Amino acid sequence: MTLSLNQWTTRRWSVAEAVDGCVRHGLEAIGLWRQNVAEQGLAESVKLVRDAGLRVSSLCRGGFLTAGGLPGDEGRRAFAEALDDNRRAIDEAAELEAACLVMVVGGLPGVQPGEPLTAGASRDLAGARERVAEALAELAPYAGERGVKLALEPLHPIYCPDRAVLSTLGQALDLALAHPEEQVGVVVDTFHVWWDPRVFDDIARAGRRIASYQVCDYLHPLPEDVLLGRGMMGDGVIDFKPITRAVLDAGYTGDVEVEIFNADIWAADPDEVVATMKARYEDVVVARP
Amino acid sequence: MTLSLNQWTTRRWSVAEAVDGCVRHGLEAIGLWRQNVAEQGLAESVKLVRDAGLRVSSLCRGGFLTAGGLPGDEGRRAFAEALDDNRRAIDEAAELEAACLVMVVGGLPGVQPGEPLTAGASRDLAGARERVAEALAELAPYAGERGVKLALEPLHPIYCPDRAVLSTLGQALDLALAHPEEQVGVVVDTFHVWWDPRVFDDIARAGRRIASYQVCDYLHPLPEDVLLGRGMMGDGVIDFKPITRAVLDAGYTGDVEVEIFNADIWAADPDEVVATMKARYEDVVVARP
Repeated sequence: MTLSLNQWTTRRWSVAEAVDGCVRHGLEAIGLWRQNVAEQGLAESVKLVRDAGLRVSSLCRGGFLTAGGLPGDEGRRAFAEALDDNRRAIDEAAELEAACLVMVVGGLPGVQPGEPLTAGASRDLAGARERVAEALAELAPYAGERGVKLALEPLHPIYCPDRAVLSTLGQALDLALAHPEEQVGVVVDTFHVWWDPRVFDDIARAGRRIASYQVCDYLHPLPEDVLLGRGMMGDGVIDFKPITRAVLDAGYTGDVEVEIFNADIWAADPDEVVATMKARYEDVVVARP
Repeated sequence: MTLSLNQWTTRRWSVAEAVDGCVRHGLEAIGLWRQNVAEQGLAESVKLVRDAGLRVSSLCRGGFLTAGGLPGDEGRRAFAEALDDNRRAIDEAAELEAACLVMVVGGLPGVQPGEPLTAGASRDLAGARERVAEALAELAPYAGERGVKLALEPLHPIYCPDRAVLSTLGQALDLALAHPEEQVGVVVDTFHVWWDPRVFDDIARAGRRIASYQVCDYLHPLPEDVLLGRGMMGDGVIDFKPITRAVLDAGYTGDVEVEIFNADIWAADPDEVVATMKARYEDVVVARP
């Protein structure tokens, strides 16, 4: 396993700057975000990573597939739009030769991230989960034809209302197993799964279905905006090495991406962030035999 | 099933006031908290509930069993103190003839609720979970001798660092099953388990092990203090009736306790809170065939 910089960790950096940063710090891989790629231009982003000799360990992100659960025409239109957008994301991942397209599947229909509930909010969690399975059945073959692997990311249950009704690795894996291994895998992100009493069993069960291993710490206490409760490895409560060991033992041979949403880290000098990330990775993440 | 007022929902009320409130609103059961019982006096609390003809649907709470994971003498002393305190809680539950003693098992050793991490914080989650099992082996027979059932409460994973390393119903159930049914059961609290993709399977598997069914809603977005993210039923994202139906189908015949931690509800007139609670219970919680 080698270290990869997910560009959201150094959020101020454009794709060009993040590629330069990876080269400067001796990293071999980078995780990209769609909006940053769009700002840089897709063709230019492809050229930048190829010229630099970097692997694209993931493209973030597809998903938000649950709005089809809204009633009537609104639901049908939202579902069709989500599928269209995800097909575009798959095309971009193919161009970038990304190891996977990370899928954040979406929350309850009509529930907006960080916004108060409205009368249109759905409470049909089981239905939302079915919409994800339906969308995946549409998208997986499309991805397969383009050599892209969809990586289902279970998110911490705190994000179940508004971001992802996929809440555990086991649940994501069960969904992935309905499709060929080269089309659908799962993400193991320490922030999201560290608390799960079944996580070691499910990592072993996932085996080669693990499409991405992402690391960042779980801060305590969480900040007011819980989306930003991610910390540099070593700053929170996660014991990384047993999880890394389990992911290795499951047969994962990809990169280890560091993806941190954190206001202080975003405000810091990106080069210092990358240097700290490299040191902490060696200290607290890498599991040597 | 009948409705029970957990007195923390009307936090301003003493035991005497809450008992009066239950009688005034036609409720048959009450959930009590140890500190309120201590303020009222144990003997007087027993007399108040008996004279009012109320059942005590639960006593909250025992637990906080994980500090034994601290190193050396500090750990040994903390573990012994936790066992002593829990034996006192069991004695109080026996006096009150409570249907169960709710157990909030504690978080990572050395991690304090709401306080920044210190150098003494443990990251040994597996070890903390083992400490809970060890403590339970000590306490279950003691509870059994006194006719008290310990009710293991899985808490939402957001509370894993600082309040409860029991994070899912399935995990709590596996722990309970190591002991006789009359000694150790589980709590199903909608706030904590609504997101869990396995919750319906685990409710069915729990069967008569369900010692308490607690309801309150999960607010979105959560307030800054996530402990207070509980809402009146109907104010959040939970679809209660399928969960109530599953709990009934599992064979649960106890009371349904409403336990809400919410600054606005604590600030409101307790009589209005109880009236709203009764109406919402009928509207959104009760599952009729």
